[in-house]
Amino acid sequence: MSSSESKFDVQQLALPHVVRLHAYAPGLQPSEPGWIKLNTNENPYPPSPRVAEALRGEIGKDGASLRLYPNPKSASLREALGRANQLEANHVFIGNGADDVLNLLVRCFCTPAAAAGFTLPSYSLYPVLVGIQDGRTLAVEFDRSMRLPSEAIAGSAASVFFLTSPNAPTGVGFRTTEIEALLNHYQGLLVVDETYAVFAEENAAGLVARYPNLCVVRTFSKSHCLAGMRVGYALANPEVIGLLDRVKDSYNVSRLSQTAALAALADTDYYAGLVRKIRATRDRARQTWMDQFGWFTYPSQTNFLFTEPRDRTGRTGLDVARGLYDFLCTQKILVRHFGSHALTSSFLRISVGTDKEMSVLQENIEVWLKSA
Amino acid sequence: MSSSESKFDVQQLALPHVVRLHAYAPGLQPSEPGWIKLNTNENPYPPSPRVAEALRGEIGKDGASLRLYPNPKSASLREALGRANQLEANHVFIGNGADDVLNLLVRCFCTPAAAAGFTLPSYSLYPVLVGIQDGRTLAVEFDRSMRLPSEAIAGSAASVFFLTSPNAPTGVGFRTTEIEALLNHYQGLLVVDETYAVFAEENAAGLVARYPNLCVVRTFSKSHCLAGMRVGYALANPEVIGLLDRVKDSYNVSRLSQTAALAALADTDYYAGLVRKIRATRDRARQTWMDQFGWFTYPSQTNFLFTEPRDRTGRTGLDVARGLYDFLCTQKILVRHFGSHALTSSFLRISVGTDKEMSVLQENIEVWLKSA
Repeated sequence: MSSSESKFDVQQLALPHVVRLHAYAPGLQPSEPGWIKLNTNENPYPPSPRVAEALRGEIGKDGASLRLYPNPKSASLREALGRANQLEANHVFIGNGADDVLNLLVRCFCTPAAAAGFTLPSYSLYPVLVGIQDGRTLAVEFDRSMRLPSEAIAGSAASVFFLTSPNAPTGVGFRTTEIEALLNHYQGLLVVDETYAVFAEENAAGLVARYPNLCVVRTFSKSHCLAGMRVGYALANPEVIGLLDRVKDSYNVSRLSQTAALAALADTDYYAGLVRKIRATRDRARQTWMDQFGWFTYPSQTNFLFTEPRDRTGRTGLDVARGLYDFLCTQKILVRHFGSHALTSSFLRISVGTDKEMSVLQENIEVWLKSA
Repeated sequence: MSSSESKFDVQQLALPHVVRLHAYAPGLQPSEPGWIKLNTNENPYPPSPRVAEALRGEIGKDGASLRLYPNPKSASLREALGRANQLEANHVFIGNGADDVLNLLVRCFCTPAAAAGFTLPSYSLYPVLVGIQDGRTLAVEFDRSMRLPSEAIAGSAASVFFLTSPNAPTGVGFRTTEIEALLNHYQGLLVVDETYAVFAEENAAGLVARYPNLCVVRTFSKSHCLAGMRVGYALANPEVIGLLDRVKDSYNVSRLSQTAALAALADTDYYAGLVRKIRATRDRARQTWMDQFGWFTYPSQTNFLFTEPRDRTGRTGLDVARGLYDFLCTQKILVRHFGSHALTSSFLRISVGTDKEMSVLQENIEVWLKSA
């Protein structure tokens, strides 16, 4: 062998677009206890007791089953989700969280020539995933009304369009009739990201059987209190599912994650109860903030509220939102502030916690209002 | 909105190379009980009892912690793996199985212009991952000696080279001095895939601190009896780790997978005992097949054996190997046959099971030898 002459330079060797990437910044996950965590839209309640029971069953006495690979296609979970949505199992794909599913969709449909579209504001991961793929992005702007910009989406040249429905971080929901109209006019694959749809009045799952250009993406994270287990899924026509199966990791979902999701899915009563509770807490908080504080707050179809804080002098804006964010941090209450977009910078996104957490939040807002 | 005129055609819309892909075919995972599974190199023993204990602890009474996102970087596990390998935590990346790590390396380094290299035969997932990326492959052939083709690797123009060490499916190990010589001569990033290195006499982890062009990839699947939990990792210089962090999924490893891996890593005595046991079973089986059956069997540094069956008439070849494979299937014993490459088609790859499983295998081979 002849000796290598040039010095190794990973920045030269790696793909230029990867070297330039900035990683997605997830919400803070404080490691010490005592925080009220209203920043990443986790469900404030524990999962169904059947989840812990099923996990203990799978682990058994000595964890012996863990030495074996999981089912590579999460076959039982595909069947169960098919049944739950009046679809065949071949309409279902299981991913390592919904983020995995979104990433695979970008890998199947997006290039520098074939754009991936999304609205602004919406889930800030989409452009990050497109950046990893070195693809082209196509952003469609909301206005402050947050009405669905249907014409712009339908007329866009994007090969795939990611529509967060209900939207994040605004919480605003869209009508299924609006989604259906889009499906009849848009020429690409419409990915309806229903991360929060369980808290909404409507969803688009019923359209999957009829529209081959629809892919509904969901997650067990929020709806089933399993953010820690990383299970997401897609509902779409079998051709789209077949593409995802070709680009996924062979064993992408662990045994225990499959077990947890299956057990959760079976306990519909428990989760229906949680959804009722979270909606009630959400709607009460919104009413209070509007009536008592005079804060504009979008009607929410999710498990969070997007509100525009107003200080005691009546001012709103980025500084006011940031001021409240910082004050709450000092009180060990975490919420989320998206400062970089004109439609979000004067708002805070606040996850719906337990009634007790929301009371503590309320008290602290009142303290801030007196002090600010 | 103007109505969509063309009919939706997912095959037209998806990226052409994705439409042409064939998915990786993992080894069979029979769902019914009663099989002796020697086809996917799982560890035949349960994980350390500390794993089940730690998982029960994390699940607690009601699984409440599962509602929270996992640590996005698997920070505790990075620190523990750094300590275990005399490296800082910033030399460690955690993936959703080693396959996730390999996939991310392809995404960082491989394009149609910048090839990813690998040996033939070796892990058949590499070209699949390169295909998903629409990248160029560069294959370096072994000859039947299975000696490391160092000149060809060092002289190759591949940006990244995947070297399975010890190799699969042959089980043949390489000297660390050979790896080090490669690192001094090859101009790209050398990924040393040490999936099976725990069963070998040497490994390359000690070179990571000194060679910025080395990335060692490992998994808890085989070494720690946790194939079901999907935890793999990379040891490399912080610049390479930083690239992987930019392209990974935000929350790529579940809470319970992090918990299981951390608990396993702490029980070094238990796993040292398993490795001794598996090596002893392996070496006994090889000796028997060579001495009693006259089967050529590569010396193995892994938890499987690559053996060339010879029928009662003394014949070897694809038909003989396939014949034994089929016969064992009828006896509910699964092994692996790679029929598509000249250097593998007359061989079977047989995972090292428990002593009892290996006895049953032995008896069945003897039956086949009489009947074939």
